[in-house]
Amino acid sequence: MSQGMRERRVVRVRGGLARRVRDRLVVEEPLELRVSGRPVGVTMRTPGDDVELAVGYCVTEGLVRGHEDIAAVRACASTGGEGDYNVLSVDLRPGVPIPDRSLDRLHVTSSSCGVCGKSSIDAVRVRAAPLGDDPVQVTAATLAGVPDRVRAAQRVFERTGGLHAAALLGPDGEVECVREDVGRHNATDKAIGWAAMHGRLPLRGTILFASGRCSFEIVQKAAVAGIPVVVAVSAPSSLAVELAEELGMTIVGFLRGDGMNVYTRPDRVVFDAGSEEAAG
Amino acid sequence: MSQGMRERRVVRVRGGLARRVRDRLVVEEPLELRVSGRPVGVTMRTPGDDVELAVGYCVTEGLVRGHEDIAAVRACASTGGEGDYNVLSVDLRPGVPIPDRSLDRLHVTSSSCGVCGKSSIDAVRVRAAPLGDDPVQVTAATLAGVPDRVRAAQRVFERTGGLHAAALLGPDGEVECVREDVGRHNATDKAIGWAAMHGRLPLRGTILFASGRCSFEIVQKAAVAGIPVVVAVSAPSSLAVELAEELGMTIVGFLRGDGMNVYTRPDRVVFDAGSEEAAG
Repeated sequence: MSQGMRERRVVRVRGGLARRVRDRLVVEEPLELRVSGRPVGVTMRTPGDDVELAVGYCVTEGLVRGHEDIAAVRACASTGGEGDYNVLSVDLRPGVPIPDRSLDRLHVTSSSCGVCGKSSIDAVRVRAAPLGDDPVQVTAATLAGVPDRVRAAQRVFERTGGLHAAALLGPDGEVECVREDVGRHNATDKAIGWAAMHGRLPLRGTILFASGRCSFEIVQKAAVAGIPVVVAVSAPSSLAVELAEELGMTIVGFLRGDGMNVYTRPDRVVFDAGSEEAAG
Repeated sequence: MSQGMRERRVVRVRGGLARRVRDRLVVEEPLELRVSGRPVGVTMRTPGDDVELAVGYCVTEGLVRGHEDIAAVRACASTGGEGDYNVLSVDLRPGVPIPDRSLDRLHVTSSSCGVCGKSSIDAVRVRAAPLGDDPVQVTAATLAGVPDRVRAAQRVFERTGGLHAAALLGPDGEVECVREDVGRHNATDKAIGWAAMHGRLPLRGTILFASGRCSFEIVQKAAVAGIPVVVAVSAPSSLAVELAEELGMTIVGFLRGDGMNVYTRPDRVVFDAGSEEAAG
């Protein structure tokens, strides 16, 4: 069985009748991340692809400029205890500045009053790759097929129902990378971490698929990685759409069956002839 | 229109045809929380019920022992800028100790190696209310009706599709409080904050409903609030179930139609006669 699943006996109720059966749960464990020896955060994640998660987190949260800033990612094994694989240390290359404490996820704002959507967008804009001029185009039919393609490539979800997926796809809908996690931000970091470790950043011409909602943080991570198109099964938030609009990213939500909503930069989506959009 | 929604023009695609329509998005904005003047965290939340969110967060994360420790929750208005309502300051009563920095959500672990599920469970057990002896019993039929009852009480979800809900219900399924947020932890904090402000903690005999997955953090927050039964529409994680088992909390997942899975303490769920569980 995958390290991402754990078996357990449960009481299953159907039609008012209860039966004891074996079920599979998605595993959730804490991961503490350190950069240059300093703890930068603890995330609850599904074990697996942890190095990609560490690299992706450091890149998308702006702790490093890219994978080239990282000398090594090491498991911390000083105690020999069972939780050792839950602590990862990121060593920076000589000369790379140690990240500012203010970049920790919970300390993104200044100590002055006035935190708001606009200040959050301004903070991301500094770190985001240029997206507005990415000329990629994707047909609506290709986008409609993305959820099925990703589902086919998923490993654990079908058996637990408890995982989020993030996937990177080419403009023709070909799946390049799928990563799963109990947390959707982690799944996104794992996929972007994979890309960073393969020298693929910035991810021009790439589609990011998110299995759930599209939040500000998902758009932020995609923007830093240079991804021009983000598609999600569920709704985006207002701030996610505002950030995408500011940066020139295409956001597609409610991707279900052959239906979808395009919130920003619809010029990247090629519709069938006869639609209002195609007509002008 | 509610402050939790924002209108926007989108391109809606159905059957291959694209049309420009007006749509409603759920609002996401940062909220910075300060306790005794010190920033303890920034969360992306849906504006509304912010004081409940602040109180609930402080209680469930162990920053205070209860609402009685809090003298006031104030909006920070030092700059007069538009983001001022996004900073809330919690003032503690005289003599209440200022929370230890180690209780911040991203700093729950010690600096030694060995962070793991067991250490996370141990950390919660110290703060959790006694749950194991709560004698509440709920029929499977009542549980099956919970999602519809909560949906009927929700305000924004139907119109945006982008919100999580958390609800507190009595053992007969009566809805006492529903709160919505783009983040499910925030929705949970808002509901528990409401209860704290009404002198209702610990929430013995109460059901917490979660519209999505059931994570370790949801169970942690419920445990600190003294809630004996947590039911969710989607899957729980392994660590959520392990924590619930340790504390004597009932966890029900995949609550859909008349079906559900009971992961822990099934003795609190009353099944129809004829089922294996009822038969012993």
